[in-house]
Amino acid sequence: MKFVSYRVDQRETYGVYVEEEQTIWNLQVLEESVTGARTLPDTLLEAIGSGIELTERVKQWIEAAGDKDKQSAAVSAAEVEWLAPIPRPAKNVMCIGKNYRDHAIEMGGEESIPKDLMVFTKAPTAVIAANEPIPAYEGLTDALDYEGELGVIIGKKGKGISREEALDYIFGYTIINDVTARDLQKRHKQFFIGKSLDGTCPMGPWIVSKDEIADPHCLDIETKVNGEVRQQSNTKHFIFPIDEIISTLSKGMTLEPGDVIATGTPAGVGQGMNPPGLLKSGDTIDINIEQIGTLSNKVQ
Amino acid sequence: MKFVSYRVDQRETYGVYVEEEQTIWNLQVLEESVTGARTLPDTLLEAIGSGIELTERVKQWIEAAGDKDKQSAAVSAAEVEWLAPIPRPAKNVMCIGKNYRDHAIEMGGEESIPKDLMVFTKAPTAVIAANEPIPAYEGLTDALDYEGELGVIIGKKGKGISREEALDYIFGYTIINDVTARDLQKRHKQFFIGKSLDGTCPMGPWIVSKDEIADPHCLDIETKVNGEVRQQSNTKHFIFPIDEIISTLSKGMTLEPGDVIATGTPAGVGQGMNPPGLLKSGDTIDINIEQIGTLSNKVQ
Repeated sequence: MKFVSYRVDQRETYGVYVEEEQTIWNLQVLEESVTGARTLPDTLLEAIGSGIELTERVKQWIEAAGDKDKQSAAVSAAEVEWLAPIPRPAKNVMCIGKNYRDHAIEMGGEESIPKDLMVFTKAPTAVIAANEPIPAYEGLTDALDYEGELGVIIGKKGKGISREEALDYIFGYTIINDVTARDLQKRHKQFFIGKSLDGTCPMGPWIVSKDEIADPHCLDIETKVNGEVRQQSNTKHFIFPIDEIISTLSKGMTLEPGDVIATGTPAGVGQGMNPPGLLKSGDTIDINIEQIGTLSNKVQ
Repeated sequence: MKFVSYRVDQRETYGVYVEEEQTIWNLQVLEESVTGARTLPDTLLEAIGSGIELTERVKQWIEAAGDKDKQSAAVSAAEVEWLAPIPRPAKNVMCIGKNYRDHAIEMGGEESIPKDLMVFTKAPTAVIAANEPIPAYEGLTDALDYEGELGVIIGKKGKGISREEALDYIFGYTIINDVTARDLQKRHKQFFIGKSLDGTCPMGPWIVSKDEIADPHCLDIETKVNGEVRQQSNTKHFIFPIDEIISTLSKGMTLEPGDVIATGTPAGVGQGMNPPGLLKSGDTIDINIEQIGTLSNKVQ
């Protein structure tokens, strides 16, 4: 299932996107129509965090729903303002640095290949939706770059999670563009400033629930800039697979439902090209991940 | 004024601490008693973020309050569970690396003195209150270290804030112990993992409102471990003063009320000693900052 957040009548809400009908079923309305009660909270982040097995329950409601239930819950996907699936994470987005061997090499040669997980963060204020403009930040950066990445959404609280259990802690998957101001990243040493400009964390367009992705370590990932292929890889090339990331992060730090982890980007970023192929006003970036979809954003 | 958060009857609430009476005046009760209405939200974080000039309004209520109002709002400070003033920040705590020249040198010599602001983050799950135990994390780290720091709490939303205006964006000041697992910090290159273990961000005991600190760049800061002075400096030695930190951070990233900035630590951390004076179970760390108070925590 594709979980989406959207805004209608100035209110944030959420639903399941039915692609073939270009329709969103609002989950609060669907629940009430099917069960006669409304127990779901007001945002997708809270729903993921409410301890319920959200995906399972939604499946049951959809099975039990008659045509009338579905009609009452349906909104036209074209008529609402799409938001990032988690428009405002409750903490910074956690990002894995140099998790593809070929990207590590393009950024600094063989010695750049990390032996241990490298993690930095992006401020939650950086998150924007699919199709929202990425600010160009002329005057602040001369080196805005794209990074197509698989995003992991945590589904339940955990600490000291073993690699064997790690995938049970995932709610679903999304696409993240870890837009980076390369000059600020370099100048300020630690990556936070160069990674946290407002609008530099496009996320979405939806979260695909975990049950639909048989193997998250076997997904083609491709980034195009103005239609030209720049990054083309597969998540099987991760240096640190998702179970290791979750296990390492949670050794001493509690992971929480709604936490967002960006799993790193393959070779082909603008900075790694000769000459560099950095972003400029008007550029469109499309990131496609197999079994998830395409995240598109244009630089303002 | 000293703003505190605390828990009573399993509910988080907040007030103003009156040190000479060992009493907290609960602000929601005080407001209702004085004005007949209750407009304040349920947490100090929300109150700081609600756009009101909180400090000014509280001053007015205290002035207008009679003995009966104060009695109804008063709770014994000894009988409640003290929390960090912002027990759960809405994003990661932003930390300035190497902001005292002598600390930069002890960590790596003259070439370690940064030319540009270095910023990393600590997960909000790391925050604990004064007097709460810091876990020792035996088996996970062999190099737990203290870092006494002045904490800045942002009071209003802003982007592109000039240095001249920067101090207007501050709500108040607190004390932070930026507890660090030095081995994890080094092993994982970017600092996030080594800085984000649960319980490694003691904060408090309160936020002193900005009006009480005439000059935040002239405060003695001292850290003791088991009574022995380890760090002794003054915020006048900042490489990057607070106005520059706020201006640089907000160039492309929106700062929000309740944001927490840890301004960096002076020389004298355990790692810099010969032989190293790292933390072990049973150690007590007391960080004193002039005009604010003392933050004490014991390693479990």
